[in-house]
Amino acid sequence: MMRIAVDAMGGDYAPAEIVTGAIAALELLDPADELILIGREDAIRSHLPAGPLDSRVKIVHASDVIGMDETPVEAIRQKKDSSILRMAKLAAEKAVDAVISAGNTGACVAACQLKMRPLPGVSRPGIAVVLPSFHGPVVLCDVGANIAPKPHHLLEYAHLASVYASLVLNIQNPRVGLLSIGEEEVKGNRLVKEARDLIRQDGRLNFIGNIEGRDVLKGAADIAVCDGFVGNIVLKLTEGLSEGLFKTIEKELGDEAPELASAFKPVVRRIWDRHDYSEYGGAPLLGVDGICIICHGSSDRRAIRNAIRAARRYVVTRLNSALESRLSRETANA
Amino acid sequence: MMRIAVDAMGGDYAPAEIVTGAIAALELLDPADELILIGREDAIRSHLPAGPLDSRVKIVHASDVIGMDETPVEAIRQKKDSSILRMAKLAAEKAVDAVISAGNTGACVAACQLKMRPLPGVSRPGIAVVLPSFHGPVVLCDVGANIAPKPHHLLEYAHLASVYASLVLNIQNPRVGLLSIGEEEVKGNRLVKEARDLIRQDGRLNFIGNIEGRDVLKGAADIAVCDGFVGNIVLKLTEGLSEGLFKTIEKELGDEAPELASAFKPVVRRIWDRHDYSEYGGAPLLGVDGICIICHGSSDRRAIRNAIRAARRYVVTRLNSALESRLSRETANA
Repeated sequence: MMRIAVDAMGGDYAPAEIVTGAIAALELLDPADELILIGREDAIRSHLPAGPLDSRVKIVHASDVIGMDETPVEAIRQKKDSSILRMAKLAAEKAVDAVISAGNTGACVAACQLKMRPLPGVSRPGIAVVLPSFHGPVVLCDVGANIAPKPHHLLEYAHLASVYASLVLNIQNPRVGLLSIGEEEVKGNRLVKEARDLIRQDGRLNFIGNIEGRDVLKGAADIAVCDGFVGNIVLKLTEGLSEGLFKTIEKELGDEAPELASAFKPVVRRIWDRHDYSEYGGAPLLGVDGICIICHGSSDRRAIRNAIRAARRYVVTRLNSALESRLSRETANA
Repeated sequence: MMRIAVDAMGGDYAPAEIVTGAIAALELLDPADELILIGREDAIRSHLPAGPLDSRVKIVHASDVIGMDETPVEAIRQKKDSSILRMAKLAAEKAVDAVISAGNTGACVAACQLKMRPLPGVSRPGIAVVLPSFHGPVVLCDVGANIAPKPHHLLEYAHLASVYASLVLNIQNPRVGLLSIGEEEVKGNRLVKEARDLIRQDGRLNFIGNIEGRDVLKGAADIAVCDGFVGNIVLKLTEGLSEGLFKTIEKELGDEAPELASAFKPVVRRIWDRHDYSEYGGAPLLGVDGICIICHGSSDRRAIRNAIRAARRYVVTRLNSALESRLSRETANA
């Protein structure tokens, strides 16, 4: 029996797409599982399918909504009955096994960090995103939970992402790269140089050294470790550039060879789908005691359904136990 | 009369492509101009065209070569007679008006910073790259000259890039964005927050606030200011991702619709050329007293020819005078 809670009010297309996606995910769940929708009850109900409600669906009312552009810390301080804060509390009380939100990322991270305990051995959780590269998936960690990390935080991200990659993506002994500005040992800022020493000395990591921006999507490593400021810029640049290039190619073809454009569109669609990271079901906040998945603000029903599938997988594979046994101090000192 | 010096030994395809590109650029120069090729005289001569040498070409012998992967600071300390160091010295002595290298970027920046004086009002030079975005060119500064800048360095980059964009790219009153992780004022690391205050207070800049990774190539700003660590990762990721996406599309088309692939190739080639930043002729190191252009390591003859054209343009438009009058303390206090 598994209980998955979804912030029904978070995201650009909330609550309609969130509720619809969550209901669509019921087919992925067991009869004994529960799906908890958090938010304004009337708003949620208005998007539920007609007829009797599936008995696995519960609604937890929360009267406040944190907007996508609100300042995270102020918002969670002021909006005590927001869906995000209520969600984080349910996770903290172990009343649910996993939580999912496509809402204000900063508020979601702040609420989860505030309410949920870190796993033993973790000092700061990190957001991991799976980027679909040209040679298979790449895990980028952190992409924004911690924009001013210390070197030992990057070491923790290397461990968290390694366990995640092997357990969830089935990558044996994943290769860890440290995102920097050159492969040579001497290159990088102070954070990278100090983190490099820590990561290299840790025999449990398959560390391959620094990787450059150009290597991230070329399969040079399975994991790219970076600070949350750099990771967030990398993630958003990747999104913007891919989208822009596809649009440019379509437009250019339409201008110069309209007869090609119509044949080209379905091919582009397939490539685009494969490079769309919502396929991976959102980004886990790794290192908190509970499963927390952060979805893109622009998530549609498909993305939410994928996130619920991912949450289920993390619970079934006992992701957090694996993270804990890797990071607990006893193991580290063994 | 203008004297342009080229490091003939720097780059993945040096000296062959460098010398060939430089000779091809002679048609862009005036009869009184000079083109100085720096490096091993025998190696340079072996790539010159047969027959009598154009009288505008001079060769300055330098016996050492700094490899692409050498540690910059050590290399320029040990290889006193390297083409890069000799090039920087010629620039410092005002024996030439512009210098160009496709060699080891770190060594080139270090040599120029060491030998050439900064322009009045500049504390640290920055490398500016013109990225061909979907809505026109975007100047990214810094992309690697200074990986641990102070807030006032970012303010200087905003000025340097603004003058460059208006003079060289003909952008009136260019919009300056500060690369960060969210548009909201509260977002960003300490460097970004402090730099934001400085830039906003400077009435000579057309500051539009923070921009995100996704906005860089979407025409949100004409200039993206960032630290050299972030800028270098952004630049290389952009290169790697564009290249990878085009390859993926070509491969996918070849697999699924081979009849489309051959028709598609020339279209891709045109788009690729337009998005190839070597078209802009390398990246200027802005803020040193002299014109210094850093080319991509993979530069071919076309890129070198373009860089010489760009160098000529910077000298003709009196770029450094404009930078100087913007940044000199007198003006700043006016």
